[in-house]
Amino acid sequence: MNSNKVIFIMGVSGVGKSTIGELLSKELGIPYFDGDDLHPQENIVKMSNGVPLNDDDRQSWLETLNNLAKAQLRTNSCIIVCSALKQKYRDILNQDIIAQTRWVYLKGSFHQIKERLESRSGHFMSSQLLTSQFETLEAPKNAIDIDISLTPSEIIKTLKNTLIEKSEFGLFGLGVMGKSLARNLADKGFKLSMFNRHVSGTEEHVALNFKNEFKELASSQPFDDIEAFVNSIEKPRKIMLMVNAGKITDMVIEDLLPFLSEGDVLIDGGNSNYKNTKERCDYLKSKNIHFIGAGVSGGEEGALKGPSIMPGGNKDSYKLVQPYLETIAAKDENNLPCCTYIGEEGSGHFVKMIHNGIEYVEMQLLAEVSTVLRNLGNNPDEIADILESWKATAHSYLLEITIDIFRKKEGNDWLVNNIMDKAGNKGTGNWTTITTAELGIPSTLIASALFARYTSFYKEERILANKNFDSNKSLKPNLTNSDILKAYQFARIINHYQGFKLISDAGKAYKWNLNLSELARIWTNGCIIKSNLMKELVSHLKETDNILTNKTIVEEVKNFKPFMNKLVSECILTELPIPCLSESVNFLNMYTTANSSANIIQAQRDYFGAHTYQRIDDNSEKFYHTNWNN
Amino acid sequence: MNSNKVIFIMGVSGVGKSTIGELLSKELGIPYFDGDDLHPQENIVKMSNGVPLNDDDRQSWLETLNNLAKAQLRTNSCIIVCSALKQKYRDILNQDIIAQTRWVYLKGSFHQIKERLESRSGHFMSSQLLTSQFETLEAPKNAIDIDISLTPSEIIKTLKNTLIEKSEFGLFGLGVMGKSLARNLADKGFKLSMFNRHVSGTEEHVALNFKNEFKELASSQPFDDIEAFVNSIEKPRKIMLMVNAGKITDMVIEDLLPFLSEGDVLIDGGNSNYKNTKERCDYLKSKNIHFIGAGVSGGEEGALKGPSIMPGGNKDSYKLVQPYLETIAAKDENNLPCCTYIGEEGSGHFVKMIHNGIEYVEMQLLAEVSTVLRNLGNNPDEIADILESWKATAHSYLLEITIDIFRKKEGNDWLVNNIMDKAGNKGTGNWTTITTAELGIPSTLIASALFARYTSFYKEERILANKNFDSNKSLKPNLTNSDILKAYQFARIINHYQGFKLISDAGKAYKWNLNLSELARIWTNGCIIKSNLMKELVSHLKETDNILTNKTIVEEVKNFKPFMNKLVSECILTELPIPCLSESVNFLNMYTTANSSANIIQAQRDYFGAHTYQRIDDNSEKFYHTNWNN
Repeated sequence: MNSNKVIFIMGVSGVGKSTIGELLSKELGIPYFDGDDLHPQENIVKMSNGVPLNDDDRQSWLETLNNLAKAQLRTNSCIIVCSALKQKYRDILNQDIIAQTRWVYLKGSFHQIKERLESRSGHFMSSQLLTSQFETLEAPKNAIDIDISLTPSEIIKTLKNTLIEKSEFGLFGLGVMGKSLARNLADKGFKLSMFNRHVSGTEEHVALNFKNEFKELASSQPFDDIEAFVNSIEKPRKIMLMVNAGKITDMVIEDLLPFLSEGDVLIDGGNSNYKNTKERCDYLKSKNIHFIGAGVSGGEEGALKGPSIMPGGNKDSYKLVQPYLETIAAKDENNLPCCTYIGEEGSGHFVKMIHNGIEYVEMQLLAEVSTVLRNLGNNPDEIADILESWKATAHSYLLEITIDIFRKKEGNDWLVNNIMDKAGNKGTGNWTTITTAELGIPSTLIASALFARYTSFYKEERILANKNFDSNKSLKPNLTNSDILKAYQFARIINHYQGFKLISDAGKAYKWNLNLSELARIWTNGCIIKSNLMKELVSHLKETDNILTNKTIVEEVKNFKPFMNKLVSECILTELPIPCLSESVNFLNMYTTANSSANIIQAQRDYFGAHTYQRIDDNSEKFYHTNWNN
Repeated sequence: MNSNKVIFIMGVSGVGKSTIGELLSKELGIPYFDGDDLHPQENIVKMSNGVPLNDDDRQSWLETLNNLAKAQLRTNSCIIVCSALKQKYRDILNQDIIAQTRWVYLKGSFHQIKERLESRSGHFMSSQLLTSQFETLEAPKNAIDIDISLTPSEIIKTLKNTLIEKSEFGLFGLGVMGKSLARNLADKGFKLSMFNRHVSGTEEHVALNFKNEFKELASSQPFDDIEAFVNSIEKPRKIMLMVNAGKITDMVIEDLLPFLSEGDVLIDGGNSNYKNTKERCDYLKSKNIHFIGAGVSGGEEGALKGPSIMPGGNKDSYKLVQPYLETIAAKDENNLPCCTYIGEEGSGHFVKMIHNGIEYVEMQLLAEVSTVLRNLGNNPDEIADILESWKATAHSYLLEITIDIFRKKEGNDWLVNNIMDKAGNKGTGNWTTITTAELGIPSTLIASALFARYTSFYKEERILANKNFDSNKSLKPNLTNSDILKAYQFARIINHYQGFKLISDAGKAYKWNLNLSELARIWTNGCIIKSNLMKELVSHLKETDNILTNKTIVEEVKNFKPFMNKLVSECILTELPIPCLSESVNFLNMYTTANSSANIIQAQRDYFGAHTYQRIDDNSEKFYHTNWNN
């Protein structure tokens, strides 16, 4: 996309839009159009007769202006003048080109404008209609506000300064994700300021070199000085932080604060802990700075081509950055952005954390399935072929990349054969496990996947134990590829049940009003856990937060279960580690047990600690204590 | 035990011990003995010749005095005067009666005493020996210090006041555990002050009523006023808090602080989070108050008859309360107290937390085993009989109480059949899971046991799911009782491995110098997880922190493994939930895998997030990145 812009100049009649439009057009050397010139004949007649237009009258006119803007953008920037009093009018004007529009709002008081109108002639609108215009007016939130008591030349100077010299959006931190998001924003036509710190010897001229590397960044401004970076951005500033979660994020906020102005917005796009995000919201609110905690999924490629974005915080704050985030987000199959307002406080980072928890499990399941396929004697290419055949029924991004991984060769050997089997983690899986423990929700698979990574880290102990226990890992389980696929599908359903259950229960505990179906929708593209199953869940989650009550899902689970039982029992007998697959079936067995052995635990607790128990034959929820050894 | 006391009056020669001893004897109406009168003839000769006694000379003499004290205690209190300059002499005098001894230390300067000695005649010790006495002197930490510049009548007044009116130990909070510990302390002969708050209507005269209920509390003092409670205790005060963990503990500390004096000791005997304990240690240190975080296990009965106690904090602080805690603790099979100094900061509460984690798993394993035995068609009495037969090889406290539980009848039915299967938890299992996630240690069984409790809480959902999935829970697995026992033993070993591994790794992470064998030893009695296995581990843990490297254990695990494999595969095929048993075998299978599928996860992470990986063919620990889809 080119960096052409349409500058819309808006405001009530008599505010001086045409004057400013013409002057600005000359100053910037770009075409100027007066929206009023493009009214259809019937509208002009109505207005001359003093009859106000209704929204139907305006619809085709606004669409005409939007088409004009689109046509102009192909070759140049331009200015369009239009009162555009309501947000919905502006939405029509912005359609499909929101990243390439700039809004100038000429602002004056009723009396100021009334005087001007009354001293004016030749205009087809009577000054009596001004009252209704003021009633209609919805002041824009994303516009350059101009006070009309300034002289026209002062206004032009201010506008030129803002439009030419100021950026619309700031991106702080040019790591892997920061760089990809910057290119994505610039590619959509946003004028950017980019900051990366200066560290002698290791991080020098990062922003400048980055700008020079990619042509879409031609009109963006590079910085390694915080004050200059902040000052280069139009107010209210929108600055996205792409820095390490934790203390670094707090330090960066402190570094920025002295240069920010009231009403500016910070967006934290890192993997911050949702508890910290809440604290930062509160802290920055006290300084009149908006704060949005936005989960961003999709990795390097997603960030560049369109990630899934999960913004949380105050809803009004979100509106200020909505055009930017929704423009750069991936699009779902209905072309809607994979970005939606999640809820208050740290809810955006919370759901991103659970997203990562679900991702941990999906990855672990593929790793376990690979163990089984390998023990059946398949080489990596053969495993890739088998996984390839699964795409018809169990398609997902992670399945796809796993196929690529198994196919990747290095000389005559497969690359996977040389990768160290110690799995890293960056915190979110661990936080999810902690959250699940704190909230009292049994997200067993996430814990299991996390612990599998931890266990992998004990490489030296594992080698020793393998020797000490004379462990034989070459037994072949009696399983077909189809058995394994069905077991895999079973476990994925349990994983998605647990993930959405955790979100649902946490949403209630934290009093966030979460929309699970919308969440599934923005996870159907752009993010690491996009899959056909996720697409299925969009509609299921409209009806229930608990997918294990959905009839289709129940039938699938029941069909897959015998294969899962077979897989687990075969793998146990052949001593193959399948902790996550195994836990998925144990979980369902627990979950479908109406009367469990937890009564024994309650009796034990009452026995040694007088913790008391309830009775199944007493609905009053009364607590009983027994002297057990009498 | 009666409340008679031996009052030892100690200090260097010439300090006035005999004078004070005689006067106090008259004042209190109890017999008085001068230790010097009981020296064997050879010691007297040595001393008259100006030859100092050595420790061998003193050994039998001190034992004589200790025997004298014991004989007197049977019928009355008494006073014994003895220089007792070294701690080891006092240890002999205290032997077996530490709870019934009180120490008075007469304290003066070298010059003060030299003057007195020189003006004195008829004493067999020459004043030149005073220098050596001062060199030998180790001032006692647990004595009533008396300044000898006071007149004898002033000294007697002070002593009478302290000995008669002041308590030695304070107990704050008379809940289930507080009451049991109070009775235990009083029963051992300690003079107690007991506090419980006044809450109109619900908690009135709790301490007073409690005192009146039990005859061992006859000499203890009841309070519901904090200031009076604190003032009733001898300085430096030792006060044990038995209140709810969390904010309540902090509030109680704040309530006590205004009345405490420098050098007083608070012991937190609740299940506090070890992180809070560290903060409280630091906070109270700044106020010159000692703080001991002591884990106490054993439930109501253990607290009464002898719990296992895990005190952590500063070692010198611990010494001030050691006699009390070690006296009330359970005794191991060698009659040593099940109480040992654990380490700095919150280490006491940390190991108590892990103790509870191990306990969660042991309880869950018994619950799962019960599920299997029940599905084999056994009624509760039959299950009890089977578990009874396991005592020979797998004896533990929890096994024992579970047998009692299954036998308990209520009319014609077994009580367990009417207990609601929703298992509660009080925080420690949840903290252990959080800790394991935070520290990167795969304590999978603790998480599994915790989540089993959480899942049990979803009773209504379980009933619904049971219906929706037409779940058949009446299939019989093909298993013998002996298979089940061996599988159970297998899982218990994995549980103990994980528990001690977590303690060991956490000890290193927090730089605590933990002694795992000692820990196992104090868990062989008094606590909920005491068992024959724990006794075995005392010696194993002297050699290694990792019991899965011990040959005996390895052989046991290898022998049990086929039965565990059989049990898990049978239970999966018959759809019985056995999450913890199942996880134990999956964990071992992971743990004994030299080359795991974690390489797939590393490849995936590098593919979508450029997280890089290491290679098995490069020992340099260098990180690699691949463009996977090229």
